[in-house]
Amino acid sequence: MSEVKNYIEENKERFLEELFGLIRIPSISSIAENKPEMYKAAEYWKKLLLEAGVDKAEIFETDGNPVTFGEKIIDPALPTVMIYGHMDVMPVDPLELWDSPPFEPEVRDGRIWARGANDDKGQGFMHAKAFEYVLKNDLLKVNVKFMIEGEEEIGSPNLPKWCEENKEMLKADVILVSDTSMINPQTPTITTGLRGLAYWEVEVTGPNQDLHSGLFGGAVANPINVLAKMITQLQDENGRLTVPGFYDDVEEVSAEERELLGRAPFNAEEYKKALDVDELAGEDGYTTLERTGIRPSFDICGIWGGYTGEGAKTVLPSKAHAKISTRLVPNQDHQKISKLFGEYFESIAPKSVKVKVNYLHGGYGYVCPIDFVAYQAAEKALVEVYGQRPVPVRSGGSIPIISDFEKILGIKSVLMGFGLESDAIHSPNENYALEQFYNGIESLIGFYKHYAELTK
Amino acid sequence: MSEVKNYIEENKERFLEELFGLIRIPSISSIAENKPEMYKAAEYWKKLLLEAGVDKAEIFETDGNPVTFGEKIIDPALPTVMIYGHMDVMPVDPLELWDSPPFEPEVRDGRIWARGANDDKGQGFMHAKAFEYVLKNDLLKVNVKFMIEGEEEIGSPNLPKWCEENKEMLKADVILVSDTSMINPQTPTITTGLRGLAYWEVEVTGPNQDLHSGLFGGAVANPINVLAKMITQLQDENGRLTVPGFYDDVEEVSAEERELLGRAPFNAEEYKKALDVDELAGEDGYTTLERTGIRPSFDICGIWGGYTGEGAKTVLPSKAHAKISTRLVPNQDHQKISKLFGEYFESIAPKSVKVKVNYLHGGYGYVCPIDFVAYQAAEKALVEVYGQRPVPVRSGGSIPIISDFEKILGIKSVLMGFGLESDAIHSPNENYALEQFYNGIESLIGFYKHYAELTK
Repeated sequence: MSEVKNYIEENKERFLEELFGLIRIPSISSIAENKPEMYKAAEYWKKLLLEAGVDKAEIFETDGNPVTFGEKIIDPALPTVMIYGHMDVMPVDPLELWDSPPFEPEVRDGRIWARGANDDKGQGFMHAKAFEYVLKNDLLKVNVKFMIEGEEEIGSPNLPKWCEENKEMLKADVILVSDTSMINPQTPTITTGLRGLAYWEVEVTGPNQDLHSGLFGGAVANPINVLAKMITQLQDENGRLTVPGFYDDVEEVSAEERELLGRAPFNAEEYKKALDVDELAGEDGYTTLERTGIRPSFDICGIWGGYTGEGAKTVLPSKAHAKISTRLVPNQDHQKISKLFGEYFESIAPKSVKVKVNYLHGGYGYVCPIDFVAYQAAEKALVEVYGQRPVPVRSGGSIPIISDFEKILGIKSVLMGFGLESDAIHSPNENYALEQFYNGIESLIGFYKHYAELTK
Repeated sequence: MSEVKNYIEENKERFLEELFGLIRIPSISSIAENKPEMYKAAEYWKKLLLEAGVDKAEIFETDGNPVTFGEKIIDPALPTVMIYGHMDVMPVDPLELWDSPPFEPEVRDGRIWARGANDDKGQGFMHAKAFEYVLKNDLLKVNVKFMIEGEEEIGSPNLPKWCEENKEMLKADVILVSDTSMINPQTPTITTGLRGLAYWEVEVTGPNQDLHSGLFGGAVANPINVLAKMITQLQDENGRLTVPGFYDDVEEVSAEERELLGRAPFNAEEYKKALDVDELAGEDGYTTLERTGIRPSFDICGIWGGYTGEGAKTVLPSKAHAKISTRLVPNQDHQKISKLFGEYFESIAPKSVKVKVNYLHGGYGYVCPIDFVAYQAAEKALVEVYGQRPVPVRSGGSIPIISDFEKILGIKSVLMGFGLESDAIHSPNENYALEQFYNGIESLIGFYKHYAELTK
């Protein structure tokens, strides 16, 4: 593979320049006014794909943000690999915690620092360059499609419909995705399981206006106190959700599988130290990797209400809000969970308040079998670059669209990701190791070779 | 009293102009950078007092915001009435809920609309005008002092020390205060009891950075979930605080007194309708007026943490915060309560998080006996204006400095307030009825007469 390494070495300045151009577009999808930025990102991806050598590339409208689609069909009779990635990124607050501005990428200590450096501009971009290499060197033996969307970070609300409407165009034999992480820089990892997600915003209203906490305090329900109590009631003392029916469809993973899962390298002391916590916490009866891999979770992602400024304001507020999420495991239906949650949340509200539950988004979990031919191609490619067999892991994260692809298009995905735990995706100071970036490109080039051979 | 009414009628345009000048100064004391505004307000008060006729008026420095002090000594042998008021106001957020800008006072529907229209610029200003009238008409038979401070809304943190240092100058026989409300526009009210206060800001820290809620959710304690649980644990199912020792010093009010308290006009249906709540809530075994008058309360005045912007961000945040207050009753020592609370809050924190408890401020409760001579003078004055005897009530609010005055200066206060429940003090659309404003001035003029007569 030294030719590949040479190519990367010779072109790395250009690669970084091209990637930085993409990163500089602040394409935060959760901010509605950001639509012009999303179109800029879509145009940028179109240009990237055309320069890399696709036959055609086009920006498609959806009911939300645009999708950039491109393809190189060398022979309709050959298998087709579809690359999926996303051009949108997470919000950047709290901005003051960033060491360098999130949309001004820079290289320090062998890493790219910026929002999207990894998730998913950095990882998505590797595919453009892997494809460029394979095509330029006349090594392409399969058809390639690219589908780069703009709403992954808000749960891909409009992509399923768009996929339904473009089934023919999106035909493929595998979807290849780089949007996940490796266990550590030495251990290549293929994510074989993803958790699903259900995400709500709730509003609790007490009195119709903010009240003086002295004149009314003690006699009128305070919506923050009530919300805190309702949140607390949603979980029992064993760390399990109390929503009736919530666990009905949760797969009880066999003792054998749990034993395999337990073989993944994990050091609780290092994990705690990295997070600066004295104790881990979660559902009783499960290990940390099980808690994130095969069990649902319950997190308040945000909460606000009343006076949050400097100093003391004595107020009994009118409203309190929270953003509530649960990670689901394969088999749990997020629509059903949403209904169960909404009903239960309303049922536990005292009569002294009014509640609103707004289902923001959700997605199904996903499992990829390790005997899938594209999994095996990915495995071979990673062995060549990293010198060892990748570990199949079940990640705690969610990429809701992955299970939608299977449902709508009938295509399995292979999640061949190159992030690291230290990349701080979704947090201030997101970064992406250059070594992972270059090794990733090399691995993806290898994938094309092995996939063509295995499907010959 | 028709001469008084005539005077008010003839001068009301000027009165409003002078008051509006004071209101236009955005003297929010909880914002540290606001100091220049506090000095503007202090200067404004100095000018008001000099124009009303005090012998001298001066702005005093404290360790915080300034105090304006003025006096008119007609004969050192005569009794002295000291007026206490405050020039500072509460924050104005959420600004978008105001129908007119908070610092641009205007009159609509017979009311003044602005932050401070009532609390305490409007009510404080009435004293300047009552004094002006009495002096101009040669009716002043007592000495008068004015002490107008700038930190009441943040708990008067520096005034006690300043009082200690100026005991001689502040000698008086009664402190007269208009910073409370009437039960309704027909029923004059003298507040004979005030609740104390203890106010904390707490911080709960989980991991040292915001985490991806998928990759870590379920295995790492979420500080918002934890804070919600801790808040919930602070109160039992009967609405009582669980802080050990919290109720030790709470006076168990006799059945007889509770019966008297129950005679105050109160209509639960109207109260609920005004607040748009279906049910009232509070400590078991007590009525609404008891819950606000003679029992402590527990309110979360503000809460924040994680992602609070638009849309969905899946994050397991590093920190969560809350502003927590309890209203205390006479006999409860806020310093002792603060200690008990801090210790308990730390004791219930799970090892998976770190907590910080910051005591922002507090104050003691207060009781004024109804046989106090100044109380009786106030009663007579109110009878003349409103045609009925005032009701002595125990308010749920706190004016921490009132009990400090008693402790430091040895002077009892009479709380002769003219606000109404609908005035929305501390909320958007604060307002003050012109009728209350004019009746208040008339009542305060009457106070001077009756107080001089009763102390002759």
